[in-house]
Parts: sequence; structure tokens; C-alpha cells
Amino acid sequence: MAAELETGLPSIRLLQTFVKEGKEVEIKLLTNDVLGGKIRWLDQNCICLMEQSNQPTIVWLQAIAYVKPKS
Amino acid sequence: MAAELETGLPSIRLLQTFVKEGKEVEIKLLTNDVLGGKIRWLDQNCICLMEQSNQPTIVWLQAIAYVKPKS
Amino acid sequence: MAAELETGLPSIRLLQTFVKEGKEVEIKLLTNDVLGGKIRWLDQNCICLMEQSNQPTIVWLQAIAYVKPKS
Amino acid sequence: MAAELETGLPSIRLLQTFVKEGKEVEIKLLTNDVLGGKIRWLDQNCICLMEQSNQPTIVWLQAIAYVKPKS
Amino acid sequence: MAAELETGLPSIRLLQTFVKEGKEVEIKLLTNDVLGGKIRWLDQNCICLMEQSNQPTIVWLQAIAYVKPKS
Amino acid sequence: MAAELETGLPSIRLLQTFVKEGKEVEIKLLTNDVLGGKIRWLDQNCICLMEQSNQPTIVWLQAIAYVKPKS
Repeated sequence: MAAELETGLPSIRLLQTFVKEGKEVEIKLLTNDVLGGKIRWLDQNCICLMEQSNQPTIVWLQAIAYVKPKS
Repeated sequence: MAAELETGLPSIRLLQTFVKEGKEVEIKLLTNDVLGGKIRWLDQNCICLMEQSNQPTIVWLQAIAYVKPKS
Repeated sequence: MAAELETGLPSIRLLQTFVKEGKEVEIKLLTNDVLGGKIRWLDQNCICLMEQSNQPTIVWLQAIAYVKPKS
Repeated sequence: MAAELETGLPSIRLLQTFVKEGKEVEIKLLTNDVLGGKIRWLDQNCICLMEQSNQPTIVWLQAIAYVKPKS
Repeated sequence: MAAELETGLPSIRLLQTFVKEGKEVEIKLLTNDVLGGKIRWLDQNCICLMEQSNQPTIVWLQAIAYVKPKS
Repeated sequence: MAAELETGLPSIRLLQTFVKEGKEVEIKLLTNDVLGGKIRWLDQNCICLMEQSNQPTIVWLQAIAYVKPKS
């Protein structure tokens, strides 16, 4: 894992844009689950996703296949 | 693996809050298992989950997709 | 993860060629998904893929099995 | 992988307790296999499990989802 | 990932022999795909496989289970 | 990956014993394949397995769940 959140990376910057804009996203996991909601924050290990339940889901970056804005 | 538990990370802090509050959580694994119980402790490699059986289950962080409070 | 994008590697150079040429590619994921589109950029962690939807999909390198030009 | 077995970690200490006590354990793998037996030793990469066959099975830590005492 | 291609390793040397000899190989992936063709080059992250299509397929080493000469 | 083959580890020593003794082993992969044969050599990344075909199969350590002597 990176020591710091590498905010210089385009991928991190794009995720942070989704956070700032409160964008609805789809997160496809290696389990084939698809989670939906808004990203509250992210760090080197995880993304905190707020789903309909308004409870925080801690998603491990290691388990993510892709993230995209909800169409 | 990190040398120390990175308690500065929001994800680690949120997990530690679940430990302090004795929160019932759901842990979704990359095997598609869903484990339920209370987190007793966590370290750089694992989470110790106390399930109904009141026996400690050592869950490898590498196998976790996400953790969320039980709805 | 690498500290920098290792542009000296043949694999990175070939991906960058796909970016420059606007090549349509297929990305096979460890979930068995096959994504199609054009690579907009790549960094140490992710590939940004522009699919039909013209929305950016952030694909984690860790989840990729292979990439090949669309036949 | 860690350079040394991190015996300061609660997870390693709990596994070593299972070794000392000759505890029957269940090991759930990312393949969805469930192996049962007694842990003879563990190092940074593997656990040596003695199953009914009384032959050593070398289980890679990277393939483990969780370990728990046999109920 | 290794900083350099570790050409001292028997596994890398054997793969490089397959490249020099233009050997037809089978590559079994963690997705259970089996790719066939000739290895054009390899670096620390990927293998470039030339399949029937004569197009380069960039295969991530992280996704490989095994490689063997085509029987 | 380790810089050197860590011959001090019990797991590596046991595998090397299988090599010296020409032991028939079963290798269970994360793909759920089970390969059988004799281990010719191992390095930090791979195991070279000689199956019935008498051709070398290069098995990535990252894809291994467990190895055990053939019963």
C-alpha cells in the first residue's frame, strides 16, 4: 500500500472530483457485486461509500475492479 | 503489508469506532461469504471477528471486499 | 505499487501507444467482465477507459487479466 | 511479504496459541475450500496444516480468507 | 513489483528461452481463460503474447496461474 | 516479491525437501485447478512442476492455495 494518498495521480484526482461533486457512482467489485452510492472519502486502503441506507460502507481498494459514474 | 497499523487513516479510525461501540457488522469476503458479528480487534493483517459462536474468527484483510454496519 | 509510471517498460509503452493512436481495446478483468473502449490515460494504479457512454471508467490495474486491440 | 514473522501482532499471537494448544481449526480459502486440522507451524508465507492424512499441507497465507477454531 | 526484470531467476530464464525458441505456449489465467500463442517479450508487469490474430495481447503477470509449452 | 529465496523459512525448506526427495505433490491453484507432478525447482516467483507430459509447467506462487504430498 502507498504510504500517502497519491493525490498527484489522475485516478485519485478523478475520484476526489466525484467526492466533491457528490457524484452517484457504481463500484464493481472482484466478487462481481456492484455497489452504488456517493463516495464520502477515500484513503490509501479504502473508499467510504454512502449507499441508500445512509450507513458508511468501507470498501477495500484491493477488491475493486472499476468505478464509474452512474449512467 | 504496512509496518504499523495506520491509525491516521479514516478507514482504520472508522473500524476502531466499530470496535469501541461494539457495533454489529457485516464483512463481505472475496469468496462471497458474508460474516456477521462484532470486531474485537484489528491489526495490519487481520480482523478478529466474534460471531454468534463466541469463538474468534481471524479474517485476513486481503480477503475483504467491504465492511458495513449491520442494517 | 510503483512510485512512478515505469515508462521504460515495454508494456507501459505499448499501452501509451494505444492511448496516442486512440485504439479501440478490449480489457478482460479478473471478474470475467470484458470492457471495450479507448484508453484516455493510465497511471500506476489505474487505466481510464472511455466506453460508448463517453463517461470515464476508472479500471484498477490489479483487476486486469489482459488488454488487447479490438479485432 | 513481511521480512520477519511479526509475533507482536495479535493475529500471529492467536495463531501461535492455536499451535501450542494443538487446536483443531477450519481454514477457509479464497478457492472456497475449507481445510480442517491442526496448525503445526506458520511462517511469513505459509501455514503448515496437519490434516487427517497426517501429511503436511503447506497453505499459502495469500490464499486464506479466515481461520477459526473448529466448533 | 520488482524494480528490474530478475533475469537471474530460473522462471524468467525459462520464459526467455520460450521467447528465443518461438515456442507455442499455453497461459492459464486466474479467470480460467487459457490463452495460446508465442511470447514476444516480457517485463516486470506483463507478458506480450502473439495469438493467431497476430495482434499483441498484454497479459498481466498478476493474473497468471501457470505457463506451459503447448503439448 | 522477496529479493532472495528465503531458504530460512520452514515452508521453503519443506518445498526443497520435496524437490530433493522427488516427491509427487498436488498443487491446488486459486483457479481451483489441481496440478500433480514433481517439483523440479522453485524461485521467489514460481515453482517448476514436471507433470506426466515431462514438460515444465511454470506455476506462479501467487496463484497457489496449497501444496501437499500426493496421498
